[in-house]
Amino acid sequence: MTFKEKVFHTIQPDENSKTKKNRWFEYFITTLITLNIFAVFFESFEHFYGAHTTLFNIIEIFSVLVFTIEYLLRLWTSDMLYPKHGKFKSAIKFMVSFYGLVDLLSILPFYIPFLMKVDLRVVRSMRLLRLLRILKLQRYSTSFKMVISVFREAKSDIAVTLFITFLLLIIASTIMYHLENQIQPNNFSNIGQSFWWAIATLTTVGYGDIYPVTGWGKFISGIIALLGIGVVALPTGIISSKFIEKIREKEKSKKDKGKKGAYKYCPHCGKKLID
Amino acid sequence: MTFKEKVFHTIQPDENSKTKKNRWFEYFITTLITLNIFAVFFESFEHFYGAHTTLFNIIEIFSVLVFTIEYLLRLWTSDMLYPKHGKFKSAIKFMVSFYGLVDLLSILPFYIPFLMKVDLRVVRSMRLLRLLRILKLQRYSTSFKMVISVFREAKSDIAVTLFITFLLLIIASTIMYHLENQIQPNNFSNIGQSFWWAIATLTTVGYGDIYPVTGWGKFISGIIALLGIGVVALPTGIISSKFIEKIREKEKSKKDKGKKGAYKYCPHCGKKLID
Amino acid sequence: MTFKEKVFHTIQPDENSKTKKNRWFEYFITTLITLNIFAVFFESFEHFYGAHTTLFNIIEIFSVLVFTIEYLLRLWTSDMLYPKHGKFKSAIKFMVSFYGLVDLLSILPFYIPFLMKVDLRVVRSMRLLRLLRILKLQRYSTSFKMVISVFREAKSDIAVTLFITFLLLIIASTIMYHLENQIQPNNFSNIGQSFWWAIATLTTVGYGDIYPVTGWGKFISGIIALLGIGVVALPTGIISSKFIEKIREKEKSKKDKGKKGAYKYCPHCGKKLID
Amino acid sequence: MTFKEKVFHTIQPDENSKTKKNRWFEYFITTLITLNIFAVFFESFEHFYGAHTTLFNIIEIFSVLVFTIEYLLRLWTSDMLYPKHGKFKSAIKFMVSFYGLVDLLSILPFYIPFLMKVDLRVVRSMRLLRLLRILKLQRYSTSFKMVISVFREAKSDIAVTLFITFLLLIIASTIMYHLENQIQPNNFSNIGQSFWWAIATLTTVGYGDIYPVTGWGKFISGIIALLGIGVVALPTGIISSKFIEKIREKEKSKKDKGKKGAYKYCPHCGKKLID
Repeated sequence: MTFKEKVFHTIQPDENSKTKKNRWFEYFITTLITLNIFAVFFESFEHFYGAHTTLFNIIEIFSVLVFTIEYLLRLWTSDMLYPKHGKFKSAIKFMVSFYGLVDLLSILPFYIPFLMKVDLRVVRSMRLLRLLRILKLQRYSTSFKMVISVFREAKSDIAVTLFITFLLLIIASTIMYHLENQIQPNNFSNIGQSFWWAIATLTTVGYGDIYPVTGWGKFISGIIALLGIGVVALPTGIISSKFIEKIREKEKSKKDKGKKGAYKYCPHCGKKLID
Repeated sequence: MTFKEKVFHTIQPDENSKTKKNRWFEYFITTLITLNIFAVFFESFEHFYGAHTTLFNIIEIFSVLVFTIEYLLRLWTSDMLYPKHGKFKSAIKFMVSFYGLVDLLSILPFYIPFLMKVDLRVVRSMRLLRLLRILKLQRYSTSFKMVISVFREAKSDIAVTLFITFLLLIIASTIMYHLENQIQPNNFSNIGQSFWWAIATLTTVGYGDIYPVTGWGKFISGIIALLGIGVVALPTGIISSKFIEKIREKEKSKKDKGKKGAYKYCPHCGKKLID
Repeated sequence: MTFKEKVFHTIQPDENSKTKKNRWFEYFITTLITLNIFAVFFESFEHFYGAHTTLFNIIEIFSVLVFTIEYLLRLWTSDMLYPKHGKFKSAIKFMVSFYGLVDLLSILPFYIPFLMKVDLRVVRSMRLLRLLRILKLQRYSTSFKMVISVFREAKSDIAVTLFITFLLLIIASTIMYHLENQIQPNNFSNIGQSFWWAIATLTTVGYGDIYPVTGWGKFISGIIALLGIGVVALPTGIISSKFIEKIREKEKSKKDKGKKGAYKYCPHCGKKLID
Repeated sequence: MTFKEKVFHTIQPDENSKTKKNRWFEYFITTLITLNIFAVFFESFEHFYGAHTTLFNIIEIFSVLVFTIEYLLRLWTSDMLYPKHGKFKSAIKFMVSFYGLVDLLSILPFYIPFLMKVDLRVVRSMRLLRLLRILKLQRYSTSFKMVISVFREAKSDIAVTLFITFLLLIIASTIMYHLENQIQPNNFSNIGQSFWWAIATLTTVGYGDIYPVTGWGKFISGIIALLGIGVVALPTGIISSKFIEKIREKEKSKKDKGKKGAYKYCPHCGKKLID
């Protein structure tokens, strides 16, 4: 096994036979990402950040260094990931893949100020891209993979219900805008504002920053709330039920392993029987 | 095929064998409706509307023109939609049908000011009828058809639970009115106000514009909240479960297509077996 | 059939063979009760009540008259309702039955001021008993009977979950009282107040009249919210699922009627087969 | 049976054959714990506590006395609970067991001020440990045992969904912090604050103490609310469904008792049949 092969098998393990090296690499990256999440969290506390700026800088530089090396190694071994393609083509293929983009975008903001002159505010908002490092967890976390697969499977259901939800929100907010705009020109100043009201109401969050005050507004919004909450809860319900299904499946497949045959068959007709 | 037949088959396609012409017509009308939704939305932003009044007027006039032509064509070919009736009778039948009324009411407000002298405020509120154009989507969108069929199927369930919900809301709001009216004469000024509180509480929206402040008020409303939320959530739950059922059915019928027999049968008794 | 028997069969119909007279009586009482609900509702609007006091008085006197006659007739025919008991004993039995008490209490407040001298405020609060007239609907409404039977069947489940809910509320509110009392002595002045917060939070109503402001308070209440909402939602979930079950059963029993046998049986072993 | 054996069998009953003595002991301890809960509750009402200080002190001293005796008896008979271990080892084993710790910690705060000089504020906060007495109920209440077993069984599911929930909360609060911090430096002063917003929103509590005001903030938080509520509701949904399952199981096992065989078998192949 060449050095390149060793590197490739360390950073890109075979799912079914992980070596000790694979696990160490996984633990290291996962720990570093978790550290980064905490860093993003505590950086937002101004006093704390002021007192520990050096520490935060060290964490950031160290993280970018590691993630850059990881990115370059993945780029270098990309021809082993896509063995059918040439060296150059597979490098491009990796770079434009979902994982490749996440890896790149989560380190790029660090280098930008060195490469070109940019506005400080742009730098600030680009730092938000560091959050993408959470998505790097996806390679290692089974829970994360489950989330993605749930959304992928329920794609068409979610699309249908989101469309219906969107229509309902539009209808509700247009009606409420026309009912409340005269009395509350500040709160219901346009349908955008009234859309915000509709979302807060139909998800039952109800902050209380905006609500109907006219008699008709309360009457109509009461009806909308009673009937609409069910429809808006649909994407929620679908995602939840798919998740629970997934967890059940996983548990069942764990149990079934080791059993010879999960189902019994009728000796007469050879068909599956309830057991 | 006469010209009239061509027109009829373009605007009223056979669900199972749509031609290219049908699809183009559908896409055109759907796009126009979507454009109208956006127009209604952005018109409500005063500054934006002021700066682009001409554009909004063009969209409106063009939409009314198209929808008027569509309406007239549907009226003209109505004797092919109801072949058993005469020319005049079928025209009337179309005009009073759900679709016919939606089509008419969504364009009428535009013409009213030309036909008679009306108060400006009436014109303003009639513009809300433009929202009915969303319902025109129903002819083309399968999702929309699903919503309608869900509500139709669950009609009796929804009626029962809405009746119970209504009784509970009445009881809760009458009790709370008598408990809080003395202390908060402005918020709980009548049972109408207290009904608004009951809806906001039992749907768990809880804006916070109105809530009990007396000890007994809080005590009773706590009990109402704990027990009542379940009952009020019923219409919601029923609609949601019917939706999910529908989506499952649709998916299943997709899967079953192509398979010879979805079920296996016992050779002994010829009955369906679990497979 | 004696006159007394006629009266009895009119006011106490056989569920499975209702006569025309029964239906008329039911419609009459149901309409009167609905009228009473509306009266209670609109009486709370001061101006409206002031302008229509006479109308409200007529409705009240007429209702009390009808309900009193109904009560006396039921009392008179009570020996036919409990045929095993004597005249006096069955009258007592009716008077202390749930229906008998509801019937009595919903008319009594009208007579009290004529019978004895009572404080005006007591009269006012006794008027709330008129709300009990809604419960008279129970005799005629199938929906209402369903609600009662759901609560009766789920009695033990609801008891268990309410006990757990209560414990959780106590724990949550005690902790929050100790965390927030120092900073917000007005809002979290005692565990009663903090109990109100716990109910509003765990039912997700969240009025916003009372909420934690300290760091620890927010932290702990976040954890409580995430985990506790599920437990508090239990009575809700149980009632909802029982309701949906009931509605399904009712629909199924409707469908099954007329069919010879709802299930097919295997000719070999005579057991039920999936069909 | 020696005296020690008698004591042991009274305080540590055999689940399947409780004697009268066991029941009396259970009722006594349960009543005392309930009394303690009420004491904690009413102590928080300052005026009430001031007027009845002596009563509260008596209850506290009596409770601590009983619970101390109970603790000592359990310690003394611990070698009968762990018969494989020696006297000393089993005493230690009991002291570090969950029940042992709960028993100790719920009486310790009473003795601390006698044993050493402590700050009054520490004493005050230690009094919160009295709440642990509720957990003593666990030994006697079946409902309580059910809660514990539900959490134990759903452990891995809850862990997975809590991890996902936590990630979503982190992402949502980081984004909102960066969007709102400029405009609302007080409300969204750091990601901790913004985390509080995320919890209140995604559990749909929505107190209204903190919410987005910028256009982008409202837009993004609308999307987060629509999609995220489903994911955050997962731990809730899992706990609820496990509970309902448990209650069903319990009911079923009650019904099944007495029946010879719950399932029928096919005489041909001897397999279970749907009945």
